Amino acid sequence: MAVYTTIEDDEIAALLKGYDIGNLLSLAGIAEGVENSNFILRTDKDTFIMTLYEKRTNEADLPFFMDLKRHLSKAGINCPLPIADKNGQILQKISGKTGAIFSFLDGISFHNPTPEHCHNLGRILAEMHLKTADFTGMRANALGPDSWSALLASIESDPDDLPSNLRKDAKVIVDKLVSAWPSDLPKGVIHADLFPNNVMFVGNDLTGVIDFYFACYDILAYDLSICINSWCFEKDGSFNITKSTAMLKGYQSVRPLSEAEIAALPILSAGSALRFFLTRLYDWIHTPKDALVKPHDPMEYWHKIRHHDRVKSAESYGLWQ
Amino acid sequence: MAVYTTIEDDEIAALLKGYDIGNLLSLAGIAEGVENSNFILRTDKDTFIMTLYEKRTNEADLPFFMDLKRHLSKAGINCPLPIADKNGQILQKISGKTGAIFSFLDGISFHNPTPEHCHNLGRILAEMHLKTADFTGMRANALGPDSWSALLASIESDPDDLPSNLRKDAKVIVDKLVSAWPSDLPKGVIHADLFPNNVMFVGNDLTGVIDFYFACYDILAYDLSICINSWCFEKDGSFNITKSTAMLKGYQSVRPLSEAEIAALPILSAGSALRFFLTRLYDWIHTPKDALVKPHDPMEYWHKIRHHDRVKSAESYGLWQ
Repeated sequence: MAVYTTIEDDEIAALLKGYDIGNLLSLAGIAEGVENSNFILRTDKDTFIMTLYEKRTNEADLPFFMDLKRHLSKAGINCPLPIADKNGQILQKISGKTGAIFSFLDGISFHNPTPEHCHNLGRILAEMHLKTADFTGMRANALGPDSWSALLASIESDPDDLPSNLRKDAKVIVDKLVSAWPSDLPKGVIHADLFPNNVMFVGNDLTGVIDFYFACYDILAYDLSICINSWCFEKDGSFNITKSTAMLKGYQSVRPLSEAEIAALPILSAGSALRFFLTRLYDWIHTPKDALVKPHDPMEYWHKIRHHDRVKSAESYGLWQ
Repeated sequence: MAVYTTIEDDEIAALLKGYDIGNLLSLAGIAEGVENSNFILRTDKDTFIMTLYEKRTNEADLPFFMDLKRHLSKAGINCPLPIADKNGQILQKISGKTGAIFSFLDGISFHNPTPEHCHNLGRILAEMHLKTADFTGMRANALGPDSWSALLASIESDPDDLPSNLRKDAKVIVDKLVSAWPSDLPKGVIHADLFPNNVMFVGNDLTGVIDFYFACYDILAYDLSICINSWCFEKDGSFNITKSTAMLKGYQSVRPLSEAEIAALPILSAGSALRFFLTRLYDWIHTPKDALVKPHDPMEYWHKIRHHDRVKSAESYGLWQ
């Protein structure tokens, strides 16, 4: 949870003069999100989200993200629609940061999604995969398998509060997964960070998908494996096959998986668990102890890697080849 | 800025079933406030604020605060109106904390209020002082002059990043102010924490007063002196007499000050600066270095004490006896 930038009083009123979205009624920094600062902006016309991009977001990527969200919105996927000012500009300078104003999505995210939520999540993921087929923007996955070895090597010290040999054991897994990584699966634009906190529901109805700031071009089924990792494990670390079955059924009701995609699910799931393990381990070591944002425990994802590494086939996720 | 408590998914839906305020559309923890956790709650009927009381708020005081806000709302002062559930209950158990739902107020708070804002603030403060005359609730000021000596003594170590002798110099000021403290000025229910962040404006129009969790029975003009301290100094520490003149003019347009109140403004202002200096110094020393909420620099208020201690009369605030 974080709001990194304070907005000066006059600045927001001046900014809104450039838009046709009404007069300011209220502005509240919200606690969601760790990468950027987010504000709920209410005018006499509507409610909006204003995002200021902090240093971890690469400004050169912003046009890709804005175009993707406009593309998905037009295609009927509920996601934050970037609002252009009177001159057609989306990106603005606000308090020295680059920022933008978006439509507000109803809904709350569920920490403990139900199988029905997982089913609806699977459906929307498949719809996004189909609806970005004609999207021409391109962004490489900076956190794909090519990056894992260097990312692990950049972690220079052993964490004294985590198991010893962790970096050595991780090196073995990195080498194993990278050498066996599938190269011929269908690719497209993936969300790449579709954790439960990035999906909004009103009751069981999925009302929106947010936070596209890791979206990139990669293996479609890899996106699904990220959701298997983030939606289908319980807090105690156990795997909930009812949830993964529901998710995969929802996905396949829109976009059936090929046999090759199904066969690759265990290695893709181990790989996506490894990707989050590595970034969490990096943050665990490199975040100052007095930082406002506490890093996530990397061990959660270490146990998930081990789980998928033991799995023999996609049957373990509720899929029968 | 803080949200200390996470609300479980089912809990909020279950809670709203007990109310007649519509179905949940969204819930966002907001970054405002340091004492409690606050959420913007949107339903298909309206927007609300939900507050969970964290450990620094004494639960026994909550009925006083709720009654006061209802009294002020009825009297036409825009403040968060506590919403009762279908059984007439205001206070609820939410995620193991005591909490309540309030009406949402439009407006933003200004970090750098203008003289016109100060004038409007003076008016509303005087209106609150008049309109609580028939309020029967009672709460003593736990941070009044009687508490200062003990509060200073409870700070057991010298801060290594503040001037040496600070605690010794503060002891001299505490003794001086307590012995000269006025005893015969008009008293009533005061807000006691009416900083700019607790007052909402849309443009120049004052749209609401929030955060009554220090409200208590004390000298009315002491409340005004808290506003002099928090609204009329610039960021560089200089005193802006144009702002204090505007504030006092606004106040007196509703409730004229007596000669005794005017004469007491310098000592009341030194005293209220001392009250915030002492609590900030306490927090500065006792807040763990890795805490989520950074303590305020107590030296800001030390300089304000010195300012008021040098002042000869209320003329220095723009008031002529």
